Amino acid sequence: MTAPEPAYVAVDWGTSSFRLWLIGRDGDVLAERRSGEGMTTAARTGFAEVLESHLAAVSAPAGLPVLICGMAGAKQGWVEAGYLDTPAALADIPAAAVRIPGAAADIRILPGLAQRDAAAPDVMRGEETQLLGAAAALGEGDHLVCMPGTHSKWVRLSGGKVAGFSTFMTGELFEAIARNTILSHAIAEAGPISGDNAAFRAAVTRMVANPALATSQLFSVRAGSLIAGLSPVDAKARLSGTLIGLEIAGALSLVAEGTPVALVVSGGLGTLYKDALAAAGISPAVIDADTAVRNGLAAGARALWSL
Amino acid sequence: MTAPEPAYVAVDWGTSSFRLWLIGRDGDVLAERRSGEGMTTAARTGFAEVLESHLAAVSAPAGLPVLICGMAGAKQGWVEAGYLDTPAALADIPAAAVRIPGAAADIRILPGLAQRDAAAPDVMRGEETQLLGAAAALGEGDHLVCMPGTHSKWVRLSGGKVAGFSTFMTGELFEAIARNTILSHAIAEAGPISGDNAAFRAAVTRMVANPALATSQLFSVRAGSLIAGLSPVDAKARLSGTLIGLEIAGALSLVAEGTPVALVVSGGLGTLYKDALAAAGISPAVIDADTAVRNGLAAGARALWSL
Repeated sequence: MTAPEPAYVAVDWGTSSFRLWLIGRDGDVLAERRSGEGMTTAARTGFAEVLESHLAAVSAPAGLPVLICGMAGAKQGWVEAGYLDTPAALADIPAAAVRIPGAAADIRILPGLAQRDAAAPDVMRGEETQLLGAAAALGEGDHLVCMPGTHSKWVRLSGGKVAGFSTFMTGELFEAIARNTILSHAIAEAGPISGDNAAFRAAVTRMVANPALATSQLFSVRAGSLIAGLSPVDAKARLSGTLIGLEIAGALSLVAEGTPVALVVSGGLGTLYKDALAAAGISPAVIDADTAVRNGLAAGARALWSL
Repeated sequence: MTAPEPAYVAVDWGTSSFRLWLIGRDGDVLAERRSGEGMTTAARTGFAEVLESHLAAVSAPAGLPVLICGMAGAKQGWVEAGYLDTPAALADIPAAAVRIPGAAADIRILPGLAQRDAAAPDVMRGEETQLLGAAAALGEGDHLVCMPGTHSKWVRLSGGKVAGFSTFMTGELFEAIARNTILSHAIAEAGPISGDNAAFRAAVTRMVANPALATSQLFSVRAGSLIAGLSPVDAKARLSGTLIGLEIAGALSLVAEGTPVALVVSGGLGTLYKDALAAAGISPAVIDADTAVRNGLAAGARALWSL
């Protein structure tokens, strides 16, 4: 019996994380590496060196093709991979990959997507590859795809094309508000929150009903703790539910009622968003984000190298 | 000719500022003091000492009554002056003032207002006195009163009563987002913005049209700077216009269309809010906030001491 033959290497290279998979001829994952050597670290220590060390660690044969997505293709990354402009067919993404010059192996970085709209300019980098991987599971037709995170992306897919998308700063705003405003007193010492917290669900529902009151609902976290005995964990849940509910209200405002929603997510954030969507009356299809990005890189590798 | 006889002392004692006026029998301002000895400073150095030093500086006769509004009446202030619950008649505010125990003179602190509503708990302290002073200029009927600031207050007045109010964290959110998120890169080195900036007005208009997209519009400050050449000053204007526009949209969502709007404000913020309201199609009555608070304290003094 011979060992499975490696066919290519798939890499998801984000701002703060690096993940690499050695993929076999039959599509199986032969080896996997995860580290904190994201773009921020690699920009200092060298992208080529980081990649080489992980290729060596999985004993990848020399010259194996490598397909990368994510922030490694940003201006501050390894080699800038630019953007494909919306509306963009997902199938057109692989051909727009940029090759690393001077490398012996065929190493390519997939481009991001850009929405060049004066009223709503937007960019993504990495999520387009998750979309490419999720698309097969979603099928044709119209879909609203939610990809939660520090900068949540909501994508309007139509017939395999990205018609448009919106980034909501939910995760980053949560951190900035929780740490750097008067609300920090109200939520100090609160543990983790869960989506079945009633204050979380009520905040989501209020935002879906009247999103205009968002920054007033934020102050009510403080006022509630002053005059209504709002506990630290409920205060934190109200803050989180307000920001996630506002995001959901915004994304829903851009699609026809009844458009199917898909949630592409991994980990605990998935449960929180599922509960928030339920509070807004939506049952999303759930797709694992880790699997989606690997499937997207596999689709890219097949298109580029007939693998 | 004799010097005008002092009748009482009016004090607006905020979180970070202290203002005192010596008022004569005919209502004239005989002397004025301003300092940075707000609640935060006075809580360390002593409220009685701060007040005494300013009374001495204006040669106030011993035993002159003193009426105070603002954060000096908070739990962390001099003596807690509690809250009057909404709906509250403005005319009922003076009688709820709390006397400083043990002081030789009659020194009283006006209460704040509290809205004990589980969905929208809210508090104010200081603005209720501005409202009391502005009420005469507004007349009876329904009014929506905007008092911009770090924590902007929008008050629904009906026949001399505060029917309800909403605090929007606009000013504090602007600072936290400008300093502590990825948007800081886009607005670095921007000078002051003005209300005739087209990016400011467009952001206000977009929020009034679709407030649900607020946190996505915030990310567009970053994306616009990456792919659409948004200048630092336009980026800052877009951030400010988004937060102020969201506040206006929220406040308008709570009143009948056509409710007259009054803007109680002093300084440069007044121009910015006037321009923002104009972008939302509203021409507010403008009332000077400094005058309003002095008039409110005068109304309180007349009610308490028949002055």
